[in-house]
Amino acid sequence: MTERFWNASVTDLLRVRDGFDLRAVDPSSTPGTTAGKKGGQAELAASAQELRELQERLFAQSRAGEPERVLVVLQAMDAAGKGGIVNHVFAQLEPHGLQLTAFKSPTEEERSHDFLWRIAPRVPGPGVIGLFDRSHYEDVLIQRVREFATADEIERRYGAITEFERGLVADGVRVVKIMLHVSPEEQAERLSDRLADPAKHWKYNPGDVDERQLWPAYMSAFQIAIERTNTPDAPWFVVPANSKWYARVAVQRIVIEALQGIDPQWPAADFDVAAEQSRLAATLELRWP
Amino acid sequence: MTERFWNASVTDLLRVRDGFDLRAVDPSSTPGTTAGKKGGQAELAASAQELRELQERLFAQSRAGEPERVLVVLQAMDAAGKGGIVNHVFAQLEPHGLQLTAFKSPTEEERSHDFLWRIAPRVPGPGVIGLFDRSHYEDVLIQRVREFATADEIERRYGAITEFERGLVADGVRVVKIMLHVSPEEQAERLSDRLADPAKHWKYNPGDVDERQLWPAYMSAFQIAIERTNTPDAPWFVVPANSKWYARVAVQRIVIEALQGIDPQWPAADFDVAAEQSRLAATLELRWP
Repeated sequence: MTERFWNASVTDLLRVRDGFDLRAVDPSSTPGTTAGKKGGQAELAASAQELRELQERLFAQSRAGEPERVLVVLQAMDAAGKGGIVNHVFAQLEPHGLQLTAFKSPTEEERSHDFLWRIAPRVPGPGVIGLFDRSHYEDVLIQRVREFATADEIERRYGAITEFERGLVADGVRVVKIMLHVSPEEQAERLSDRLADPAKHWKYNPGDVDERQLWPAYMSAFQIAIERTNTPDAPWFVVPANSKWYARVAVQRIVIEALQGIDPQWPAADFDVAAEQSRLAATLELRWP
Repeated sequence: MTERFWNASVTDLLRVRDGFDLRAVDPSSTPGTTAGKKGGQAELAASAQELRELQERLFAQSRAGEPERVLVVLQAMDAAGKGGIVNHVFAQLEPHGLQLTAFKSPTEEERSHDFLWRIAPRVPGPGVIGLFDRSHYEDVLIQRVREFATADEIERRYGAITEFERGLVADGVRVVKIMLHVSPEEQAERLSDRLADPAKHWKYNPGDVDERQLWPAYMSAFQIAIERTNTPDAPWFVVPANSKWYARVAVQRIVIEALQGIDPQWPAADFDVAAEQSRLAATLELRWP
């Protein structure tokens, strides 16, 4: 299924490399596949089992002490499809092995600490796939655009993020950073749809239009953040997201390939299997009232 | 679909009532349906959308200040199918609105506090569906059977649990307590399957056989716990679980009916929709480089 759907490694195609220019990424493109929406939806469903088995192996091997885990960082403009990625890709995972954190505007207490203070405790433990729906990158995106921090402080943060992520990698965290990239025209349509449907009003925030007015400043902030924090061990992926079906299969495949990179294995039993089979068999003789 | 699958309200059928006797529940029975495994699997898939929409409404109305949420407490002997319930029923929910907590043997720190100390912080917030995979009921089940606490302390806990749950209900938490009920013969088969498959060894714990040897004591502890803590607002449901398909559709339906009891509504917009449509339209005139 996968071989036919993808005509190249989407992980290779979307991974940010030296000389990256966000302006050169077409949000409507679908690198690595020509299958279209219907094919994309079929691929998404067909690969769920592969994703789940890798997750289960990762979880299982952690019970035997293996430290590996995955952290996916998801960043995007409003209405770019983060929610859909959560509900259509990460919802395929077993809930026990998934830890989802949605970072909102920092609270007063959070603002009184270094920007990584609220992030660090949400790093997933061994065997778990963590998803950050927004993240420490907000601290160099909206905070840069809105000048919520000084230029010096923003500058400091790029290095702090790189150091922080280096520490995660050393602990066995596979760090995957994803920007969903929509065009401003596509965003306008999606916001307009939310305004047109009373069942979607709760997803709409007047602040979305305020931020939208600063689109070029946000694209510039993304470009700089990605440049400054893209490292071999904690790479960025920029996923064209005007087509929801494409963004979903691309993120699914990136996560699958991250898990394949770990290559998790079923752990050996830490008990004597034959002895346990005998003990279990002996209980069948018990006479219970 | 539902009307044809269920020939009676499964919530009514499985709800514990006065005079309840666990020994009278046949773990192989399938109250409320004669559809069988294939029909059950179809029903489980067909009702996913209904479950998700109710969940989304619950989440949405909480954004407007509504306090309601759901807490499902899941208790069972080992290998009774808790994992399957999580992965086949709760996995249907949107991850953002689901908070899953697996309670393990208490740590040293947890043991130094009252038994509810580790439980209370895991109660879901407004709009969220919480699932306790094991719970405060372990403190009157294994702790009673194994005499980890004195008889007086166990006695005190039934009342403490009832008081604790009364407080939850007052806060807008719909409390749903579920025992998955398997037969000891069915458990033996499932444990045997785990021992036979190296990919399942990580799920096996030699302690499972130790607890299994105390089956009658556990059934008695369940009977007493259910009797003492079954209240109109925080009811128990005993779900026959020898058929995995039945346990899954039954739990799914119980959760759906709990949500229907809340009857969550899309919240009204807290902004001027027409004004926002104008503001959004105005951004389409912006000339970005």
